[in-house]
Amino acid sequence: MNMDSRTPDRLREIVGAPNVLTETVDLIPYGFDGTAALKEAAACVVFPETGEQVAAIVRLSRDHGLPVVTRGSGTGLSGGSVPVPGGIVLCLVRMDRIVEIDAANLTMLCEPGVLTKSIDDAAAPLGLFYPPDPGSMKISTIGGNVANNSGGLRGLKYGVTRDYVMGLEVVLGDGSICWLGSKCVKDVAGYSMKDLFVGSEGTLGVITKVLLKLLPRPKAKRTLLATYDSMEDAARTVSKIIEGRIIPCTLEFLDRSTCQCVEDFAKVGLPTGAEAVVLMETDGHPAVVEEEAARMAEVARENGALTVEMARDEAHALRLASARRSAFAALARIRPTTILEDVTVPRSKLPDMVKFIGRMASEHGLRIATFGHFGDGNVHPTFLTDERDEAEMVKVEAAMEAIFEHTIQLGGTITGEHGVGLAKKRFLPGQFDEGSMGLLRQVKQALDPDGLLNPGKIFD
Amino acid sequence: MNMDSRTPDRLREIVGAPNVLTETVDLIPYGFDGTAALKEAAACVVFPETGEQVAAIVRLSRDHGLPVVTRGSGTGLSGGSVPVPGGIVLCLVRMDRIVEIDAANLTMLCEPGVLTKSIDDAAAPLGLFYPPDPGSMKISTIGGNVANNSGGLRGLKYGVTRDYVMGLEVVLGDGSICWLGSKCVKDVAGYSMKDLFVGSEGTLGVITKVLLKLLPRPKAKRTLLATYDSMEDAARTVSKIIEGRIIPCTLEFLDRSTCQCVEDFAKVGLPTGAEAVVLMETDGHPAVVEEEAARMAEVARENGALTVEMARDEAHALRLASARRSAFAALARIRPTTILEDVTVPRSKLPDMVKFIGRMASEHGLRIATFGHFGDGNVHPTFLTDERDEAEMVKVEAAMEAIFEHTIQLGGTITGEHGVGLAKKRFLPGQFDEGSMGLLRQVKQALDPDGLLNPGKIFD
Repeated sequence: MNMDSRTPDRLREIVGAPNVLTETVDLIPYGFDGTAALKEAAACVVFPETGEQVAAIVRLSRDHGLPVVTRGSGTGLSGGSVPVPGGIVLCLVRMDRIVEIDAANLTMLCEPGVLTKSIDDAAAPLGLFYPPDPGSMKISTIGGNVANNSGGLRGLKYGVTRDYVMGLEVVLGDGSICWLGSKCVKDVAGYSMKDLFVGSEGTLGVITKVLLKLLPRPKAKRTLLATYDSMEDAARTVSKIIEGRIIPCTLEFLDRSTCQCVEDFAKVGLPTGAEAVVLMETDGHPAVVEEEAARMAEVARENGALTVEMARDEAHALRLASARRSAFAALARIRPTTILEDVTVPRSKLPDMVKFIGRMASEHGLRIATFGHFGDGNVHPTFLTDERDEAEMVKVEAAMEAIFEHTIQLGGTITGEHGVGLAKKRFLPGQFDEGSMGLLRQVKQALDPDGLLNPGKIFD
Repeated sequence: MNMDSRTPDRLREIVGAPNVLTETVDLIPYGFDGTAALKEAAACVVFPETGEQVAAIVRLSRDHGLPVVTRGSGTGLSGGSVPVPGGIVLCLVRMDRIVEIDAANLTMLCEPGVLTKSIDDAAAPLGLFYPPDPGSMKISTIGGNVANNSGGLRGLKYGVTRDYVMGLEVVLGDGSICWLGSKCVKDVAGYSMKDLFVGSEGTLGVITKVLLKLLPRPKAKRTLLATYDSMEDAARTVSKIIEGRIIPCTLEFLDRSTCQCVEDFAKVGLPTGAEAVVLMETDGHPAVVEEEAARMAEVARENGALTVEMARDEAHALRLASARRSAFAALARIRPTTILEDVTVPRSKLPDMVKFIGRMASEHGLRIATFGHFGDGNVHPTFLTDERDEAEMVKVEAAMEAIFEHTIQLGGTITGEHGVGLAKKRFLPGQFDEGSMGLLRQVKQALDPDGLLNPGKIFD
């Protein structure tokens, strides 16, 4: 791919000179995202400040046949924002205004570059709540969350990003701007195109505005941490809680390997011999929260918990939650390369999945630490490895492939919340039947016939 | 459209002779649905019993260029299942098995012909709950609910049908069968094609299985009925309840006209002079339900309610709820033709909308009774008219058009839960910008290039 030498000048005309980067050294940070071992060099990075500028850039790219890869903070874990060599990176971080908070209708309208955490922070003073809380929420952008339909720790009770997207402004492949959805709680006019764009990983259009649904903020929250000497006991606790008609907002777990790393790193007082740690949180009405927290502690004890610790106050709760929140950072210190996977199975299959991951680790002589969202069946097997060690990477590949296959056999999905991107596209045909793969291609072909929007992501 | 005389025989080979109707007298009931003044004559009605039979019928229809209109119980209110003259009606009511209830994963797998109410009835003994409750739930099918993304009375708290669809088996326009979605709470593999099919009104494929999400059944419920002498007081009550961080499961209203008809019909003891009646229900944990119900009663009184009645027991609650549940039946008795509209606006705009509808009624000398879902901004202005009176129908058309225009000006939608179908397709381009209309057409063209699946619905 060779960019016409006048293209950067034309981009400068659209967004102003300070909003275009072309020097090799400036481009480096935009050549990769949060995914290990994936890097490419774009020809330039553009920072538009309005939807009209985005539309003009997309039109320019179409006129010159240049691929466009949209990017927020670059925290993605599937290579979804890795550039196409020689193409344009459209970085939306300067479109970061919260346009409106409509308390009467419980909505917020914002630009795609707003940080996820800023959304909930802006809602909080009005007694409102934006539930999705991906692990990266302090630095990830809402545009990236919508493009990947990000999950988080509160998925079981509150759902994922999709459940909070009421409308989108998008720039299509032909450079036109259109609006999808409305502020209406119910709206069945036409196909739900916004739902097609949520999770489409930048391959169908560029999201330039997001209309979000907010909820009343829960009045109380209680946090508990239980430790176990068997994953089965932990799993039974989770099943019994849900059978008892409690839907906690958080039901997270760490396996033995993760516990040890977290304890070394964050010193939160985890018993280092534990096979499993489960973090539970319930939120809502104070009376219900007290009752549910007490019942969850009881259920944990009835099902073999070694210890059950209930947070006394906010600071204590934060300390307990940090066991889970710091897992990725703790694991990333151990070896040069950290590959965070994202398989998800129906909740009841989670113990089977965790056991299988453990077997793969020992069979292939690998270090895999596993943690994730027990309530969602969403597991993050984390390979602690070194991408420079070719022999070990062959084993990592083999183990990963076996894990994906087993996931699919269990009725699961190769990605619960990180997306397919570049990293997992070769596994998608194993999960989707031919008809479903055909549907994806038909939709892509219909909406982006020139194939210039984030090409090569999800499928070839 | 002329059907080849051998086609019915080929259909009989696929589904068996008793599952094909071709006699004119037998076809009559399948020539219309719940929508006033829309009727067409199909060439035959077929009742498949398996997905494979559906696929074979779709292939046959493609080979002969015959349009296929899918149908459940025919309760639709936008003409979505009105046949194409001379085409095939694919009636799925004999595919009515509940295939599996998976209590551990809170899911139910069923065929499209299962009645909506049967789904919740089957979930209840396991302590589980299927929230969507369209007005027609005793006779409508889940397939039709999914195809139209049906709403109901519990939308504000529990959302609509889409929020409970985890997976679909669909037969595509080429007769292939594919599976979309999974039992995973989180799944971001590929585009969310199931979300595209939900609400697509049979124009993209035929739904042959539905995987539904269930919730734990709420332990308690409280029902209240408040009456007002002004719609503004009623609206303020609703706003204040939500501002107070209460999200009731039901917040329904009836206007003066509807109240009078309901009282004449059902004798539930409504004050016939009331300008507005609001039905409120809260469900969940018993302690919270008691507290919220008491607080809602207080808020109603603080905001000018004439009377507030709280149900003492289940029977009393049913009586109060019947004021709202019987609204359509009560109104349908008044004049020969009942046209139930379905405009929806952002919740805060509802009083404006109701006032505008009243003005249209008096300006055009029409009888319009209005009721609906206050919490969702979803209003059902119901024209009590006579389709044989041409002069009056001209006025109905004019008033309806003005109501749709005003809805769109308020940021609303021409249909909140009934669908576009035949009845509203000419208004859709007023709501959608050109880009969005183009997207609909591109998707239809890509997925049903022969245009044989429910042709002429949503758009031409």
